[in-house]
Amino acid sequence: MQIRSKAVVYRAGAATVAVEDIVVDPPGADEVQIQVSACGVCHSDLSVTNGTLPLPPPIVLGHEAAGVITRVGPGVSDLQLGDHVIVNFIASCGHCRYCATGRPNLCDHGGMSALTPAGGAVRTWDADGQPLNVMTGCGVMAEHATLHKNNVVKIDAQAPLDRCALIGCGVMTGWGAACNTAKVQPGSVCVVFGAGGVGLSAIQGCQNAGAAMIVAVDRLAHKLDMARLFGATHVVDASKTEQLVKDLRKLTGGGADYAFECVGFGEIVAQAYGCLRRGGTAVVVGVGKPTDMSSVKTASLVLEEKALMGSCYGSARPRYDFPRLVSLYRAGRLKLDELITHRYRIDDAVQAFDDLVQGRNARGLIVFD
Amino acid sequence: MQIRSKAVVYRAGAATVAVEDIVVDPPGADEVQIQVSACGVCHSDLSVTNGTLPLPPPIVLGHEAAGVITRVGPGVSDLQLGDHVIVNFIASCGHCRYCATGRPNLCDHGGMSALTPAGGAVRTWDADGQPLNVMTGCGVMAEHATLHKNNVVKIDAQAPLDRCALIGCGVMTGWGAACNTAKVQPGSVCVVFGAGGVGLSAIQGCQNAGAAMIVAVDRLAHKLDMARLFGATHVVDASKTEQLVKDLRKLTGGGADYAFECVGFGEIVAQAYGCLRRGGTAVVVGVGKPTDMSSVKTASLVLEEKALMGSCYGSARPRYDFPRLVSLYRAGRLKLDELITHRYRIDDAVQAFDDLVQGRNARGLIVFD
Repeated sequence: MQIRSKAVVYRAGAATVAVEDIVVDPPGADEVQIQVSACGVCHSDLSVTNGTLPLPPPIVLGHEAAGVITRVGPGVSDLQLGDHVIVNFIASCGHCRYCATGRPNLCDHGGMSALTPAGGAVRTWDADGQPLNVMTGCGVMAEHATLHKNNVVKIDAQAPLDRCALIGCGVMTGWGAACNTAKVQPGSVCVVFGAGGVGLSAIQGCQNAGAAMIVAVDRLAHKLDMARLFGATHVVDASKTEQLVKDLRKLTGGGADYAFECVGFGEIVAQAYGCLRRGGTAVVVGVGKPTDMSSVKTASLVLEEKALMGSCYGSARPRYDFPRLVSLYRAGRLKLDELITHRYRIDDAVQAFDDLVQGRNARGLIVFD
Repeated sequence: MQIRSKAVVYRAGAATVAVEDIVVDPPGADEVQIQVSACGVCHSDLSVTNGTLPLPPPIVLGHEAAGVITRVGPGVSDLQLGDHVIVNFIASCGHCRYCATGRPNLCDHGGMSALTPAGGAVRTWDADGQPLNVMTGCGVMAEHATLHKNNVVKIDAQAPLDRCALIGCGVMTGWGAACNTAKVQPGSVCVVFGAGGVGLSAIQGCQNAGAAMIVAVDRLAHKLDMARLFGATHVVDASKTEQLVKDLRKLTGGGADYAFECVGFGEIVAQAYGCLRRGGTAVVVGVGKPTDMSSVKTASLVLEEKALMGSCYGSARPRYDFPRLVSLYRAGRLKLDELITHRYRIDDAVQAFDDLVQGRNARGLIVFD
């Protein structure tokens, strides 16, 4: 039986998103349906509306969510009605060479381009009965969604679903860049560029990994205040210096072991790389525009043996990482509540996107009844 | 007592090198004197003569050599007269954070800029009694040299010193890029750009590490023939295709796990990066000009989680790596003889440098009586 649902939809040519009444099919084989508890409003959602992320409209947005299993399709044996889950926006197969070597974020059958659940069947329709794409196979900025079983990870039922929603994208991406991709060591010196939701999560990852010094860099004072709250030991206002790299090298006593670019500009990649000490690693988390280039001097790359690494989805292994992030939260070692700077009803989605564009939030969260 | 020695010297403004009679002091504290058996003619020597490597003349060239200990200074306890040694051009201290963490190639007290032995005293003089700089603290393109004890590594006396000379720079640099920096895994797919002495050594490193496929890329047919001899399973003549990266992606079945840039051009770094599969690593070995940039698309770095790593001196730990390279040679698993395409007497040093400029050699070797 189909179910009616409100959803945040982006249509071709529209100035922004709209809230529509849609219809969601019941789950088919290897699919589940979830009632969404909360969904974060992420830059990647915005990127769909401005074409930076080329997923064609009409499309239901949303990929950073948590909810409760309400229906299970044939062939689903490890999920039951009532299970609490976090959405994983890459439905990894579990068997390809990437999955087999602990890199499900690069799965041959995952990928960020999926427009339907992994099986390929359309499960989501607009009020006129026309098919809707669903972002990364999820489309969870909606009350209800049908998605592939590999797009959800079961978590402890005691964890608060609204806050756990953020683990699914922003927290995983930033925290994982530090703990999975870079493998920050205790006592390390780290610099994090950008103190939005992803950057704050990278800061927390550095803190959880035992970094001795965590320098946050941003151009907005209120973001730097947040950075301190999340574990930065030092903050630098990039708008107040003409020689940012030099300042950072001095502050870190000769350069950082690890630098994280959580913005998505090649110019900032160059700053992150520039503030490294010999043998240091710059991890790039921000995706940037398709044409954006990251450039480094070849001679310094070689003679100082530096490294420039990309981090996709924080090198996530969601079945392992989501539960451990939930555990860290429940142990009081990972901040999620403080990351949510505004809660919205779905009817206020346009405002939520405008606040995102204006940089008003660490993370805005759409919460469902 | 001072000793007279022929040496290859570069002087300011000269068109090329000259062979001069020089005078070498006996070793001071923590120094040794060696009789050089052979010294490779490396691009880094050439780089001193054209200013790419900014070591000021007048300077005795040479950093890739092997020889026999002829004198030991006070405080040298682990080297004796007659010991066979390979020159290590970074006199690592053994105690700084880099040395302590297995990265002596980045030693705080090493560095490639040293112009005298590590203690700072001048030990090398021209025929007029004027001081001479010595390249990287070595200056071993000479019959005799006095250098710091940490610039030599003792090896098995049964190993042929002339061939072992090459281990000290070119072989270590290429082989180490594969085995130390990239840590190539058995069954890996590798592409090596540039089939000169360093590139051929990278190919051998990939082979020793058990790579399943090793593709050599060069623009000269005779270098590609050498590449096959050294273990390349496939060769690609870059001068014969307009779509090198596309060809390489096809040949490797979707991209390489590892690509090695052994030339030193940002343009080739881009090709190395471009031929990687998702999750792959490009290792840059060629130093390039000071202004040369390596540029990659930020979006692909992140979304495909690629990495761009510099490799300095093959991430060498000479005390560990030189003896194991000697062992591999003696076991017939590392080719050195075939790397030497021309032997020169020191009086023919100008010819040796001209042959280097013209790309006539895999490695030219100056051999002493």
